[in-house]
Amino acid sequence: MAKKKHAPKKFVAEKPKPVKLTPIDKSTLTKLEGLADKVVNAAMRGRDPFLDIPTRALSNVRFNKTKRYIEMGKNTNRRELFNLNQARSYMQTLLAGSGCKGLIDEGKTTSIRGLYYRMKHTIEGAKEETFNNQGESDAVIEDLEVLANSLREELHLYADKRGEMVGPIVLEDMGDEIDCARMGSGGYGIPSIVEPDRIKFKRCTADFILHVEKGTVWQRFNEDKFWKKHNCLLTHGAGQPPRGVRRLLHRMHNELELPVYCVLDNDPWGYYIYSVIKQGSINLAFESQRMTIPDAKFVGLRSIDLERCGLDMNVTIKMNDTDRKRAKQIMKYPWFEGKKRWQKEIEKMLQNDFKLEVESLINLGISYVTETYVPERLAEGDWLD
Amino acid sequence: MAKKKHAPKKFVAEKPKPVKLTPIDKSTLTKLEGLADKVVNAAMRGRDPFLDIPTRALSNVRFNKTKRYIEMGKNTNRRELFNLNQARSYMQTLLAGSGCKGLIDEGKTTSIRGLYYRMKHTIEGAKEETFNNQGESDAVIEDLEVLANSLREELHLYADKRGEMVGPIVLEDMGDEIDCARMGSGGYGIPSIVEPDRIKFKRCTADFILHVEKGTVWQRFNEDKFWKKHNCLLTHGAGQPPRGVRRLLHRMHNELELPVYCVLDNDPWGYYIYSVIKQGSINLAFESQRMTIPDAKFVGLRSIDLERCGLDMNVTIKMNDTDRKRAKQIMKYPWFEGKKRWQKEIEKMLQNDFKLEVESLINLGISYVTETYVPERLAEGDWLD
Repeated sequence: MAKKKHAPKKFVAEKPKPVKLTPIDKSTLTKLEGLADKVVNAAMRGRDPFLDIPTRALSNVRFNKTKRYIEMGKNTNRRELFNLNQARSYMQTLLAGSGCKGLIDEGKTTSIRGLYYRMKHTIEGAKEETFNNQGESDAVIEDLEVLANSLREELHLYADKRGEMVGPIVLEDMGDEIDCARMGSGGYGIPSIVEPDRIKFKRCTADFILHVEKGTVWQRFNEDKFWKKHNCLLTHGAGQPPRGVRRLLHRMHNELELPVYCVLDNDPWGYYIYSVIKQGSINLAFESQRMTIPDAKFVGLRSIDLERCGLDMNVTIKMNDTDRKRAKQIMKYPWFEGKKRWQKEIEKMLQNDFKLEVESLINLGISYVTETYVPERLAEGDWLD
Repeated sequence: MAKKKHAPKKFVAEKPKPVKLTPIDKSTLTKLEGLADKVVNAAMRGRDPFLDIPTRALSNVRFNKTKRYIEMGKNTNRRELFNLNQARSYMQTLLAGSGCKGLIDEGKTTSIRGLYYRMKHTIEGAKEETFNNQGESDAVIEDLEVLANSLREELHLYADKRGEMVGPIVLEDMGDEIDCARMGSGGYGIPSIVEPDRIKFKRCTADFILHVEKGTVWQRFNEDKFWKKHNCLLTHGAGQPPRGVRRLLHRMHNELELPVYCVLDNDPWGYYIYSVIKQGSINLAFESQRMTIPDAKFVGLRSIDLERCGLDMNVTIKMNDTDRKRAKQIMKYPWFEGKKRWQKEIEKMLQNDFKLEVESLINLGISYVTETYVPERLAEGDWLD
C-alpha cells in the first residue's frame, strides 16, 4: 500500500455548527431550568432560596422486593442559600447545573473531571474558590443527578471507557453503522454514553448475552468464536463494569429481550459484581431503575467446581480475612438472604476457604471454559439466580 | 425491530479444525524447538544441560545513542539442571517453553495468568509444585522471551486489552475488515496481539497519528471529530499504553510512515509515558527494537502553559515529594540528559512546583484542546523531541 509522510496541515477553524438538541436533551434542559426557576421564584416572592436534595446515604436506601432492585427512599436534605453552612454547597449545586446546561447547549460532553476543571474558578471579589478539589465537585454532581432526576449521561457527563462487545448486532453510533459481528480480535469499545439518542439498535439476531468479567477471558471466548457458535453477544466490563457497560446491558436486555448470563469468578468480588449488575449498588441507588437487570443469571465458577470439574487444589487461591468478611457481608444482602441456593453457595465457599478464578479452568484445557464449562451450564440450565 | 427471547441452544461440540501455522508461528516454533534440542544434545553428549539466559537487570541495560532506544547488553546467567539452586528455575523455563509450544500447536492464545494456571501442577511422585505463584511464572516467561528471542505475543501470550483507535485506516483483523473511520463514539478496541499475521493494514490515508494519554480526553477528540478535520489516526492507551497499543503505534509509524504526536500531561508521569513510547522501558529493554518510536514528538502540556495559555492558578495541581523526585530522575535519563529543551522544560516544572493536566484546558473552553491548543502546536511545529 502507498506510504505517507506528511506534516500535519495548517488548521483552519471551522464555524461551529448549530447544535441539534435530542428529545432527551430537551427533557434534561427542562429539568435543569426548573431548578433555576425555583431560585428566581423564591427571590421574586421574597423567600430564601433552597434545594431539597434526596439523601444519598445507606439510611435512605432499600431493596424493593417487587422491583427486585435497590432504590432510594424519600428522605431529603434541605440546602439553603442564606445559611452559612450550606451557602457554599448551594452555590456549587447551581454551578454544576449551569455547567451541564452549558454542555447540552453546546452539544458537547465531558468527564466529571472535565466538568470540575470547567467550574473551578476564584469567585469574583473574593479569595474563595468554587471548588477546592474534585471530591467536592463529584459529590455535587451526584446531588444534581438525583435533584434533576437525570442520569449523569443525560447531563452530558461521561465516565472512563472500559469494556468491549462482539456478536450479531448492528448498532448506529453517532451516525456510523457498526456491525459487531465483524470486529476481529479487537471488538467494539463500548462507549461511556449509550443513551438511545446516541446508540440505536438496528438489527440483532442474538439469542442471549454472555457477559464475562475480564478482558483476558473475553479474548479467549472471542478467539474461540463462542458468540458465533452459540449465537450470542459477548461483552466484558474489565472487572466491575463501568456505567456505560451496565446501561448497555440493561438496554439490550429490555429493548431486545435478551437474557443475560454472567461468567464471573468464584470469589466475593465476582459475587459482588453480579450483585451490582442484578440489583444495583448502594452508592448509586438512584440509577438502579435504568441500570439493573434483576433477571441476570450467574453462570460463573461455583464453590462445588473443585470436585465437579476435577480441578487440582493447586489452582485454588486461599481466602484472606477481607475475603471472609466480604463473603459474610454479601450473604446478608437482602437479595441474597432469601435465596437458599445462594446461601449454600457462599457457605460452601467459606467452608472451602479458597477462591476459584475463571482462568483456573485452563488447567483442564485452554478452551475448556468455552467448549465445556459454559456450554454445559447453559444447556443444563444450571445457574444461580 | 423484532424481539427475541430464546434460551441458549443445546451445544454440539465441533471437531477441532486443523491449525494453520503462520510464518511467524513457524519461526517461533523453530526457536522453541532449538531450546529443547539443546537439552537433548547435552544429554547425548553426556554433558550437564544448561541455558544461558540474558540478564534482565539495570546493570545489563544501556541507551543506544545511534538507535536511540534502550537495549539489553550481552551479559547472561547460566541456569543448570544439575545445580540444586537452579534446577527448579531450569525446569520452569523449559515448562514455559513447552507450554507456549502447545499454544502455538493448538493455534490458541492465552494471558500470562492463563499460562500460569496451565503450567501449575504437582510434580509426579513429589510434593513439589511447578510454580508457587504467578510471580514465579511471569519472571520465567520474560526469561523465555529473551532466550527464544521472541516477543511475548509471538509466544501466543496476551496482556489485558486497553486503548482504542479511530481514523482513516482499514485493517484486517482475523479475517474481518475493520474501517476505523466508521466507529461512532465507541472506537476499535486495540487488540493485545497485533503482530502482522493477525492485524494487516489494508488502506490508510491518514497523515499522522495523534496519541492521547487518557480515554476521557480521547472521547473529547473523537466527539469533536479531530481525526476527520486533521486527517489523522486517534489512539489512546488508558494511561501507560499497554503492549498492544505500543506495538501497533510502532508498526503504523514504521510500515505506514506516519509521524506520532503524543498529547500527555505536564507531570512526571506524562513525561515518563512519553519516554517509554520513545525509548522503551528498562524492564522490557529486550523489546525496544519492536516497540519504541524514537521519532515520537511530545505535544502535551508544557511548563510554560500557565502563562502562555492564560490559565488560572487554581487549575494547577501542587507537586508532592514523589513528583519532585521522579522529575529529577527523569531529567537524568540519558536520552533527556543531552537535550537542552527537555532540561529547561523539567527545570521549569520543578520551579513551578505544580502539574498541569490536559483536562485543565477545559477551563478555557470545552474544545479548547481540540480546536486551539493541539492545532496551534502542530501548525507551529512547536513540540518537544
